[in-house]
Amino acid sequence: MVYIAVMGHGVVGSGVMEVLTTHVDSIRQRAKEEIRVKHILDLREFPELPYANLFTKNFEDILNDDEVRIVVEVMGGLNPAYDYVKRCLLAGKSVVTSNKELVATKGAELLKIAQEKNLNFLFEASVGGGIPIIRPISQCLAANDVTEIAGILNGTTNFILTKMIRDQMEFSDALKLAQENGYAERNPSADIDGLDVCRKICILASLTYGKHVYPDSVHTEGISGITMADVEYADAWGGVIKLIGRVKKLENGKIRILVAPMVIDRSSQIAGVDDVFNGILVRGDATGDVVFYGKGAGKLPTASAVVADVIDCVKHFAARKYLFWSDADPDYVDDYKNDETAVLVHVSAADPTLALQQVRDVFGEIRLLARKNEAPGEFAFATGVMTEHKIDEKLDALRKQEIVVYNCLRISDF
Amino acid sequence: MVYIAVMGHGVVGSGVMEVLTTHVDSIRQRAKEEIRVKHILDLREFPELPYANLFTKNFEDILNDDEVRIVVEVMGGLNPAYDYVKRCLLAGKSVVTSNKELVATKGAELLKIAQEKNLNFLFEASVGGGIPIIRPISQCLAANDVTEIAGILNGTTNFILTKMIRDQMEFSDALKLAQENGYAERNPSADIDGLDVCRKICILASLTYGKHVYPDSVHTEGISGITMADVEYADAWGGVIKLIGRVKKLENGKIRILVAPMVIDRSSQIAGVDDVFNGILVRGDATGDVVFYGKGAGKLPTASAVVADVIDCVKHFAARKYLFWSDADPDYVDDYKNDETAVLVHVSAADPTLALQQVRDVFGEIRLLARKNEAPGEFAFATGVMTEHKIDEKLDALRKQEIVVYNCLRISDF
Repeated sequence: MVYIAVMGHGVVGSGVMEVLTTHVDSIRQRAKEEIRVKHILDLREFPELPYANLFTKNFEDILNDDEVRIVVEVMGGLNPAYDYVKRCLLAGKSVVTSNKELVATKGAELLKIAQEKNLNFLFEASVGGGIPIIRPISQCLAANDVTEIAGILNGTTNFILTKMIRDQMEFSDALKLAQENGYAERNPSADIDGLDVCRKICILASLTYGKHVYPDSVHTEGISGITMADVEYADAWGGVIKLIGRVKKLENGKIRILVAPMVIDRSSQIAGVDDVFNGILVRGDATGDVVFYGKGAGKLPTASAVVADVIDCVKHFAARKYLFWSDADPDYVDDYKNDETAVLVHVSAADPTLALQQVRDVFGEIRLLARKNEAPGEFAFATGVMTEHKIDEKLDALRKQEIVVYNCLRISDF
Repeated sequence: MVYIAVMGHGVVGSGVMEVLTTHVDSIRQRAKEEIRVKHILDLREFPELPYANLFTKNFEDILNDDEVRIVVEVMGGLNPAYDYVKRCLLAGKSVVTSNKELVATKGAELLKIAQEKNLNFLFEASVGGGIPIIRPISQCLAANDVTEIAGILNGTTNFILTKMIRDQMEFSDALKLAQENGYAERNPSADIDGLDVCRKICILASLTYGKHVYPDSVHTEGISGITMADVEYADAWGGVIKLIGRVKKLENGKIRILVAPMVIDRSSQIAGVDDVFNGILVRGDATGDVVFYGKGAGKLPTASAVVADVIDCVKHFAARKYLFWSDADPDYVDDYKNDETAVLVHVSAADPTLALQQVRDVFGEIRLLARKNEAPGEFAFATGVMTEHKIDEKLDALRKQEIVVYNCLRISDF
């Protein structure tokens, strides 16, 4: 018998209880032990639940119970989760979490404590919900140099973009629909401004390359500036717009990392990842491209990933899982503007014939794109590949010639 | 330092040597030990290789070397691989293999020996090449009831079908092209008749549901009967034809398993898996659909999966990986004809107007399908969902009314 505690009884926490109670036999069989929840920490009360007697409002009840060997943290947010998790580890308890903010900002420190204490700190559910990604990256791809990871890591924004692409909804209407369906929060900023994706790509980058990447070191763009015109020009180019988190390994040992909406070729495996689904592409020197696809969020997918980690903990009390990264040098993250990319640029000018000539003078060979119902003077073009520094310079040159630049979207090479 | 031996120096074996020599540092870092190859078993000689001195033609050199703790079997085929692997396990050596025939036909026996000897018997590379699938299924989905697995598991047949769909090539021309490109063997039977897919879905079924499923208990259809007419009618329906290995769990504890070409809706995540790529869909009660995509074969993808297993062995000398299935009752595999499916039927008749009425009398509501350049009297239709027994009966009824049934393809529900 292994006793565990669950901190937080929101969507994921109640899902964890559901998975544990509906899969008793298969879990016992796989863990080779019975797993029993002894405490649930929540400030609210749930008198109607069959396990109402397990609730406590006092974290010390968990911390001081020596029978509890694994603590599940599904409260979310940094405070008090960070303090609680740290104290649990210091007290000799393994921790399983779905909290991406915690892992993305405090991962190196917590992994170090876990290592020193010979405990597990596992977080499969923090990226990709029910899609197995942390473990495949850390284990299956061990004999493989991962050169790049790129993913659709946020279901809310992918739902919004899918509605814009498929149903020609404007951004604000699609966001409202996402909120009505419970896919987006009332304050949707963490999703639509890209912060959620940023945390997840930081976790994947830290895990893959062994050094902690902090969210505030990552250039992050959201999707609130995407218009139907962008969607239509991307379509004319042969692609769809997706919010992408991407990290690349450079030959000098540094990384380039970015969160931004990008134009994805329709033939890419990532292009067909629609609605609230996530898709993560892992590019390896030996494996080539491997893609993981599934529901990136939701009560039961996330809860099943949490419980799988708990099972793994139970199986590895003796031999710790090798999951580790250390802190990085300050210059480990290279300037994202050194990266080379093609871009799709949406512009307008009083004299479009002249403007097109100016665009060609500045950018060289371009591909002109058209859409239905273009406003007078409006057009878009796709450029060749160049550094982002160069793109900035050239866009400035266009602006000086009184061309209005509405948007400039990176075109992905995967 | 951990010494290993490699049995077989063909495509995968030489790839294993390449991955081990080009990734020395990252492998040492991940395994926490240096891994060194001490013997390579092959009847051929490779005097030009820098590691020519490691070769032996004598299996006993490996078997009797107590320093060798892990043996990699990448010879393929059942003999002598089965005998060698069994003797290695009995001699106390862990085994890593990419040999799907070995695992599909002897897995239960070899896993039992490994368990009794407290050794590892790992085979990530046997299904999906470089795509992590064995480990995600056995670990990440531990807290999840997998209700169904369906996959495009063979790159050769997927290449052929892709050429038929995209380039309107006839089957025989597409096969010839696959042979010219080195994707198909001179004797392509194991691929095009579905045997390779059958072995792989048997391994996934055995692993997922814990009981060995033998290839000869699985109804297996290949793709050599697929014509351009089938491809065009599938297109008219809104789908593509893919060779699918599929297993479903029934509520009574039995399974239904099948290998056959199926019509896949274009909106399915599996439909976009083209060329030599593989895609595997795992449907769980908690996770929903999770899809794994990548190169299912090839020297380096397969070799990197083998080496990842070797690293896992090294990390788990103390604590064995829980990978196990037992033998099954004889009636564990349910008659595939009890399964319910819709089908796409391609027919011809002297009087098509009459024939269409007869089809409607027999099948009830159908969806009529047309293609360009139909021969006189030729048409196709999609039926509703019914058991395969019923479908057989109804097709017989049509045949009795002098309707020629060219082909009948299952329409997938994923």
